[in-house]
Amino acid sequence: MFEARLPQAATLKRIIDPIKELVNDANLDCNDSGISMQAMDGSHIAMSSLQLRADGFDPYRCDRNLSLGINLTSFSKILKCAGNDDVITMKADDDADILSLMFEGKNGERVSQFDLKLLDIDSEHVSVPEQDYDCDIKISSAEFAKICRDLSGLGQSMVIDVTKEGVRFSAGGEIGNGSVMIKQGAASIDDEKGAIYTRINMREPVSVTLSLKFLNNITKATPLSETLEIHMTDDLPVLFQYNIGEIGHLGFYLAPQIPDEE
Amino acid sequence: MFEARLPQAATLKRIIDPIKELVNDANLDCNDSGISMQAMDGSHIAMSSLQLRADGFDPYRCDRNLSLGINLTSFSKILKCAGNDDVITMKADDDADILSLMFEGKNGERVSQFDLKLLDIDSEHVSVPEQDYDCDIKISSAEFAKICRDLSGLGQSMVIDVTKEGVRFSAGGEIGNGSVMIKQGAASIDDEKGAIYTRINMREPVSVTLSLKFLNNITKATPLSETLEIHMTDDLPVLFQYNIGEIGHLGFYLAPQIPDEE
Amino acid sequence: MFEARLPQAATLKRIIDPIKELVNDANLDCNDSGISMQAMDGSHIAMSSLQLRADGFDPYRCDRNLSLGINLTSFSKILKCAGNDDVITMKADDDADILSLMFEGKNGERVSQFDLKLLDIDSEHVSVPEQDYDCDIKISSAEFAKICRDLSGLGQSMVIDVTKEGVRFSAGGEIGNGSVMIKQGAASIDDEKGAIYTRINMREPVSVTLSLKFLNNITKATPLSETLEIHMTDDLPVLFQYNIGEIGHLGFYLAPQIPDEE
Repeated sequence: MFEARLPQAATLKRIIDPIKELVNDANLDCNDSGISMQAMDGSHIAMSSLQLRADGFDPYRCDRNLSLGINLTSFSKILKCAGNDDVITMKADDDADILSLMFEGKNGERVSQFDLKLLDIDSEHVSVPEQDYDCDIKISSAEFAKICRDLSGLGQSMVIDVTKEGVRFSAGGEIGNGSVMIKQGAASIDDEKGAIYTRINMREPVSVTLSLKFLNNITKATPLSETLEIHMTDDLPVLFQYNIGEIGHLGFYLAPQIPDEE
Repeated sequence: MFEARLPQAATLKRIIDPIKELVNDANLDCNDSGISMQAMDGSHIAMSSLQLRADGFDPYRCDRNLSLGINLTSFSKILKCAGNDDVITMKADDDADILSLMFEGKNGERVSQFDLKLLDIDSEHVSVPEQDYDCDIKISSAEFAKICRDLSGLGQSMVIDVTKEGVRFSAGGEIGNGSVMIKQGAASIDDEKGAIYTRINMREPVSVTLSLKFLNNITKATPLSETLEIHMTDDLPVLFQYNIGEIGHLGFYLAPQIPDEE
Repeated sequence: MFEARLPQAATLKRIIDPIKELVNDANLDCNDSGISMQAMDGSHIAMSSLQLRADGFDPYRCDRNLSLGINLTSFSKILKCAGNDDVITMKADDDADILSLMFEGKNGERVSQFDLKLLDIDSEHVSVPEQDYDCDIKISSAEFAKICRDLSGLGQSMVIDVTKEGVRFSAGGEIGNGSVMIKQGAASIDDEKGAIYTRINMREPVSVTLSLKFLNNITKATPLSETLEIHMTDDLPVLFQYNIGEIGHLGFYLAPQIPDEE
C-alpha cells in the first residue's frame, strides 16, 4: 500500500509539466524514504531527476518498494482537473495497475477522484555520482528562462562561460551574435518577488555549449522555484536544479555539445 | 416595424456566441411579447432556446410578427464592433431584408451603424412541453464549465449521476477514469463573485450520459450568468438554463446518449 | 563612428515592429542631425517614414553619413532580448558590416551585447514634399486601431469620409455594411489614459478608400503614441503619423484605392 498526501496540487502539476517535455513515460519509484523519478530523453542528451522526501507528505506510507509506470501526458491531463489549492492524495495497492488520485477542495465539499492506468516500463536507473563541480551558480529562474528564450532567436546553441567577471550566456547564427553578461551579486528585480541576487562560486573557469531546444524544455520548470542552481564542469553534463519548497528538488542533467560537431 | 433597444451590447454578444457554436443560421422571431430564437444543431442532439421579454427592452416595438433569418457568424462579427457598454438598437422594417443595428457610445459622440443581410431560413418550431423534472440542480456556471473542460481530457462522454449524496460528474477512457462529486450546499468560491452554493432538488435519482463536445459548446454561455440550472429526468433531454439578468433566459436541450451505442 | 543612446529600449521595439510588417529590409540613415528610415512595401502601396532627432539621444554622435542596411526581422529578434526599461546603445564604425547593440539593465549589473549583421540594400529615397492637406484629424490611436480591426470583419476596404458632421469610417461586403461616425470633439475614454478628444480640421470634405490589410499593419504602431494624426486630401496618399515622445515621429503614407478597381 502506497499513500502520499500533498497540500497543494499545483506543486505536482509544476513537477510533471517540464518532465513530460523530455519523455513520454517514466517510472515513479516509491519507497519508505520518499518518491523519485528518473527520466532520460530518447536522444540521451537530457535526463531529469526528481526527489521528493517522505517527510514532505502528510501522511506518507509506503509498505513495499513500488515502481509505478506513468504516461506523463495522461498524468498531466488528470492533474489539470485539480484546482491549484486542492489537497491531493495519491494511492496505489502493492500490485496496482492503477494510481488513484483524489483532489479535495478547501472545505471538502468538492471531491474529485481519478484513476490513472499504469504501464509496464523497462528502465534502467542511471546512477549519477555526487560530485563537486567547478562552478556553482544561483540565479533567478525567471531571468535564466528569459535569456534562453531570447537567445533562441539567434541560434540553436547557447554557450555559458564563467569567469572571474561573471557568467556570460551567448549565442550566434546567421543574423548576428549576442551575449548577456551577469555579474556576481547582480540583482534580478521582479515586481512581485523582489530582488534575487546572482551568486557565482567558481573554482575553475568553465565554458560549455548547450542545446537551446533542451534548455527551453528545462526552463518549463521555472514556476517551481524563484531560483535555479546551475552546476558546471567542462565536458560534463550540466546540472540544472530547481528546489521544490522544503520537500525535494527536480534536477536536469544536460550533456554539452562538442562545438566541432555543431 | 420592429425596434428594440438594449442598454448593454455585451448581453447580446454573450447570447449569440454560444448559439453560433451549435448552428450557422437561425430565425430571430419577434412579436409583441418579445424576441425568441430556437435553433437545432444539424445532428439533432442539441437545441438552444432563447427567450427575451419585451419589457427587458426600452423602447420595444413590434407591429407585426417577424421572423428574421440570421447568419450567426455574421451577426457575431458585427456585434464584435460594439463596445461592451454601448447601447444597442435593433431595427427592421416589416418586409425587411436587412436587420439594422446601431451602437452608441456612452455619451453619444461615437455612433456605429451596421446593416446585416437577412436570409430566408426554413425552420419548424419544436414545441417543448413545460414539464417537471426528476432533478433540478443550481450550480456555479463557471464550476460546471471547468468540470466539462477537465473531464474532456479523459473521454468523450460525461455521466451525471444525482443521488442523495450529491451530484457526480464522471468520464473515462483509455488513460483512466475520473469523477467529481459535489454535495448539496457546497460552495463554489470565486474571488470576484463570492460564494455560489450548489442546490440539489431530487425527487428521483437520475443518471444521464452526455456528449462532452456539446457540453463544451453549451458552456460558452457561462459569461451570461453566475449560476446555471440543470433539469434532468432519465432518458429525456437535459435542460441547461442560463438566466439573462431580469430579461429572459437562454436554454439548451441536450439529448442523452444511450450508453450501449457509445 | 556612429553612436546613439536611448533611455528606453521599448521605444525602439515599438518603432521597428510596425515597419517590419511592411518591408523586410531597409536602410537606417544616420547623419549629424539624427536618424531616419524610409521603407516602401513591395507593392508600392504603403511607405513608412521614420525621423528621430539627434537631440533625442544622449549621447549622439555621427561623424560621417552612414546608411546601415537592416533586416528588420533580425533587428526585431535582437530587440526582443532587451528589457523594456533597458538603456540601449547603438554603435557602428564608419565602414561597418555590423550594428552593435548594447542593452543595460537599470543598475548596470546585467549587460547584453548584440551584433546585427548589416546588408547592402539598394534603395532610392522618395522625397515627399511637405504639403497642406484638406483634412487633418487627431484621434485616439487605440480607437482608430479598434475601428480598423472591427471593420475588417465586414470587408477588405475602409472608406474614410470627412464632412462637417465629423469623420465616418465605413466598410461593407457579403454579410452587410457598417460605419462608425465620430464627431468633432468626441471623447475616447480609456480607463488608464483618460479622455482623448477627436479634433477635426477640415478645409475641404474628403473621401478616400483604403486597404484594411495595410491599415491593420500600420496600426501596429499604436503603442508608440496615445494619439494618431491623419492627414488627407482626395486622391493623394493618406499620411498616418505617430509621434514618438519628444524625439521624432513615425509616419505611414498609404495610397488610396480607386473604387472602380476594387
